[in-house]
Formats: sequence, structure tokens, C-alpha cells
Amino acid sequence: MELNTLVDAVMKNIFVELEASGRHVHVTAQQAKTLFGHGLTPERALSQPGQFVAKERVTVIGPKGKFEKVAVLGPERPEAQVEISVTDGRVLGILPPVRLSGDVAGTPGAVLEGPAGKVELNQGVMAAKRHIHMHPADAAKMGVKDKQRVRLQTFTARPVVFEDVTVRVHPAFQTSVHLDYDEANACGFQKGDLGRIVP
Amino acid sequence: MELNTLVDAVMKNIFVELEASGRHVHVTAQQAKTLFGHGLTPERALSQPGQFVAKERVTVIGPKGKFEKVAVLGPERPEAQVEISVTDGRVLGILPPVRLSGDVAGTPGAVLEGPAGKVELNQGVMAAKRHIHMHPADAAKMGVKDKQRVRLQTFTARPVVFEDVTVRVHPAFQTSVHLDYDEANACGFQKGDLGRIVP
Repeated sequence: MELNTLVDAVMKNIFVELEASGRHVHVTAQQAKTLFGHGLTPERALSQPGQFVAKERVTVIGPKGKFEKVAVLGPERPEAQVEISVTDGRVLGILPPVRLSGDVAGTPGAVLEGPAGKVELNQGVMAAKRHIHMHPADAAKMGVKDKQRVRLQTFTARPVVFEDVTVRVHPAFQTSVHLDYDEANACGFQKGDLGRIVP
Repeated sequence: MELNTLVDAVMKNIFVELEASGRHVHVTAQQAKTLFGHGLTPERALSQPGQFVAKERVTVIGPKGKFEKVAVLGPERPEAQVEISVTDGRVLGILPPVRLSGDVAGTPGAVLEGPAGKVELNQGVMAAKRHIHMHPADAAKMGVKDKQRVRLQTFTARPVVFEDVTVRVHPAFQTSVHLDYDEANACGFQKGDLGRIVP
């Protein structure tokens, strides 16, 4: 085994890559039709297999402000979701509860506007709870299980230990930590930075 | 000693109050004259003795955007300083280095605009490095010294341990942790939340 390959293998047993997710929206097939006149068109693949950034963009409107050209992630989902940071929430005038993706019950709504029409969401606005997407092989190596909550130390310019980070294990996942931009900026994240699960 | 007094005393030996600082500007006496036509007028006292939020507001202008009605803190200082979050920096088009207050050498500049005139700063824009203001009595109780770098656990909705938090000890300081809004939002800070120095 070459040294670089060995170092790489050791690194992957110890460290987890960090990723920062900007504000984005998930929509249903029906909502995509209303907003854009058609389904979502893939523009760029995301790190999680099958997920993509769509060519289509929407305006997210709250009682106090709006964001234009917000990314829409595909494929379409059974339920809409608007993932923003708490900082974004101040601009929109919506206080986003911190939730795991999919847990939309009781969250506030917002209005989405696309080139073909508007959709009024009754719920779906959240700040994504920080989490680690893990492939089962990596979860086994690091000794963690699906839904486990762990502490994660970041090797970043403004180092922190994030407590209460939820592990999500799925064979389709590529292992990486998902932070929102408040968290990414608070820890001084730059692309390529790593984290480590600590006791 | 009443129970409440006792609990309060114990709390103050163990915990430190957290505060979030929004974007703000410090100016010199000469710059205040240029921007407003006169010196700063106190509107509201801050937690640190003698420090105040001025009635006057400025617009901070960067190459990509601007913020209007930005708070100006008094009293006037020997050198201007613009404290923003990394998130704010994206809006302005300025990447703020993370610095302790006063350490402005080599930081980027910005334009300040007030009702009476404009000031072009060659330097002074920074993201304030998180720090703990400590009264010497509290520093002694908690066993820390001026300029020491400590780890701080937050008892907040999204708990974190901030590493590399600089302690600043001064008889004029009231003991509190200063976070910027990226950090405050990343840890789910709400007014009244506490932190604790941990090993």
C-alpha cells in the first residue's frame, strides 16, 4: 500500500468531512409543476447519491423579507421543506425551529414564488438540525448507530465541539457532516475541513 | 443566607452569562464629526461600564452590498473598527478576518456613510474573536488569567463547546461571554443563557 493510500485510509477511519448547506427548498412534484410549469431539471449532482441541485430557482417570501434565486434540491419529495439558517429567519421574519429533515409537523410556513406561479406552504420552514450522514461501513468503523447523538469536534479556523449531532445511517449515504451556514461560519469552516466524533 | 441568594452565588462561581453582539462600528472623534457633524450621543448603556450604544447610526458599504442603520458604540476610540459576522461579510463582499478587538492591522477596509458625510476606512473590518470579559474577582474564582485561551461549554438549545475562547481580565469588566451572531445562532442562544469554562 502506498503511503498516501495508507494515510487516506487512516484519515477515513478517524475523520469525517464537513459540508455546509446553504438555504434551499424541497418541493413536491405538484408544487414544481405550479412553480415552474414542469418537474425539476438536474443541474448538478450533490454528494448524496441521487440528490441534485435543480436548474430551477424560487423566491422564498416571509412576512418581513424575501430571498430570491433560492436553490431547489431534487428529486421531488412527498412534502415541501424550506431549510434556512436562524440568520436567514431574521431576514424573512420567520423563526425556524431546529428540526431533522422530514420532521415538518408544526413548523411555520412561507410563500414560494416561481416563474409559473406561487405556492403557499402552511408548514415546512426549519433550520436543519446538524447531522452526520453515514454509510453503514463507516458507522461500524466509528462505532456509532443510526439516530445516535454524538459530539463532533471540528478541525477548523474557529474550532468547536458540536454537541447533540444526530447520526443518520443509510447504505445510500456518503459519509459527511451537514452544518448550516450559521454553524459553518461560527466554526470558521472552509471546504475540505474535517471533523471527528469525540467521547 | 436565603436559598435564592445562595443559588445565585453558586451559579456565579460556575457559570458565565452569554451575550450576542450584533454588527457594530467604533469610530474616532474626528470620524464622528465627519459622519454626524458632532460627537456620539449616548442612547443606551451597554453591559461593560462606560460603553454605550449611540443615537447615531451609519451605513456600512462594501464592494458587494451595504448595511444601513448600523449601531455605533461609544465612547469614541483612537481607531475605527467595524465588527461584522462572516455572514454579514458575504453580503458586503468583504471577508472579515477573526480578530480580537483593537487588532486591526492588515484587516480590510470599508466605507462608512452618515448624515453629514462619508469616511473611507483603509482597515478595521473584522469578525470579533469570541472572548470572555472577566472581572478580576471572577477570573480568580474560575482560576483563569488575562489572555488565557479556554474551552467554553454553552447551555443552549444547540449546545456546543467553543474552543479557543480568549479571556480578557480588567477591573472595569462585567463578566460575560461575547459571541457574534453566527456563533449565537449556531448554538441556539437566547437571552439569559449561560456558559461554563470546561477543561
